[in-house]
Amino acid sequence: MTKEACETCHPETCTSTTCETKKAEKLPSKDINHIKHVIGIMSGKGGVGKSSVTALLAVALARESYQVGILDADITGPSIPKMFNIHRPLQGSDLGIFPAESPLGIKIISLNLLLPQEDDPVIWRGPLIASAVKQFWTDVLWGELDYLLVDLPPGTGDAPLTVMQSFPLAGIVIVTSPQELANMIVRKAIKMASLMKVKILGLVENMSYILCPDCGKEIYIFGPSRAEEAAAKAGIPLLGVLPLDPELTTLCDHGKIESYQGMLLERVQGFISRISL
Amino acid sequence: MTKEACETCHPETCTSTTCETKKAEKLPSKDINHIKHVIGIMSGKGGVGKSSVTALLAVALARESYQVGILDADITGPSIPKMFNIHRPLQGSDLGIFPAESPLGIKIISLNLLLPQEDDPVIWRGPLIASAVKQFWTDVLWGELDYLLVDLPPGTGDAPLTVMQSFPLAGIVIVTSPQELANMIVRKAIKMASLMKVKILGLVENMSYILCPDCGKEIYIFGPSRAEEAAAKAGIPLLGVLPLDPELTTLCDHGKIESYQGMLLERVQGFISRISL
Repeated sequence: MTKEACETCHPETCTSTTCETKKAEKLPSKDINHIKHVIGIMSGKGGVGKSSVTALLAVALARESYQVGILDADITGPSIPKMFNIHRPLQGSDLGIFPAESPLGIKIISLNLLLPQEDDPVIWRGPLIASAVKQFWTDVLWGELDYLLVDLPPGTGDAPLTVMQSFPLAGIVIVTSPQELANMIVRKAIKMASLMKVKILGLVENMSYILCPDCGKEIYIFGPSRAEEAAAKAGIPLLGVLPLDPELTTLCDHGKIESYQGMLLERVQGFISRISL
Repeated sequence: MTKEACETCHPETCTSTTCETKKAEKLPSKDINHIKHVIGIMSGKGGVGKSSVTALLAVALARESYQVGILDADITGPSIPKMFNIHRPLQGSDLGIFPAESPLGIKIISLNLLLPQEDDPVIWRGPLIASAVKQFWTDVLWGELDYLLVDLPPGTGDAPLTVMQSFPLAGIVIVTSPQELANMIVRKAIKMASLMKVKILGLVENMSYILCPDCGKEIYIFGPSRAEEAAAKAGIPLLGVLPLDPELTTLCDHGKIESYQGMLLERVQGFISRISL
């Protein structure tokens, strides 16, 4: 579809990888910011648990004493602040915007921290969404970070496009579920990254199964795992497979993800060791 | 956030409900189209099964001999064609675009039916997305329909905004999951509908529980149901609650949703009887 996009070619909206006018400049960041690795977390399809995986990655990294930030690029459906029980509005100065900080020291920026009420809708068209995402990079005082995780919204529209064009990404992690339907849409995300020449660091299959709390049986609610097949087909590394853990869901709902001690965390630590930056 | 949107006020992007320049005209449709009820299906949050609910509603209505169409407004993450096993490209004539038709006679329009390959990404910014959604209304030869169901993408951005501004909606059905986090984002969708003066026909709670195939226990994977509380809080009718049915997931993955005979269908028929148009 890039051809059609080219018919309306303009550096602001162009998605072509060949067009010379495009060559989107990476956006500058504040002088005080020193961010070693910027990693996008993407899925294409919503509801596969991308934000939970982003948050778990951040918690796992913070527990290993890394300096971590999360840039919530899901402008119209932000999930991150609630998982960390952060509700207070962001503060700014002449220098820029200060990110919120979790008890573990994870720095967080999300549009929800700029709303009068957390359930106020952000009824914005694409250009405003793209501009907010850019400001989260250019105007925020992130300081020193080992990792900045960028939680992308579902789809392949304005926010992922802006992040891929304008942020100095080390690469992206793709989150999927075993549902074939989800995989079809996830393949769109993989193709988009390839078109935009962004490195794919690996695939995480989430919600692979659930353990029946009564009989312990593994229930494959979305069908059998297709993680290995999907990763091989896309030619990208499989970072691992995560079951659904109702304990994690409950903690996320109560803003206590940082106190999670369950088995997912160990697996996520395994993913991190398999990411090659 | 409407105030901030107003600062960049332009009829094309304005989301204000008070601004006089806005008063978005409802878009004209083809002369041969006679559509009795246009209903949006919305969730705010992705992955709550909105497209499955849309498809089940269409199947239930078609089985009751209604003429039904589905307009897949999820431009960057379309799920509908695959559920109905429709892959062939759309055909057009000087008169307009012919929708695809399922074995049950459900008419379907989706951007995926215009792509060379179904997993090609549509890397479009907002204005192109809004324009595609509009064309699905203005340029498609729907003919006589009792119901046109509009499957909206997650979020409160371009596609939902365009549909609410430009389509003659009878109202919208909101789909949610028991997860409090999902509900917070769903409340954004409810507030958006209210700001846009679109009637909310009711709330469907999806993925409420799963039955363990071994011991039959109801497992509340996303926590206890909060449907009644959520509907009462929002002041909207509760149409009903749907468990996760792995059989439905499998049928959707294989494009056979129309052969589904499980218990969800009966419940969806119940929802329809509770919708007051």
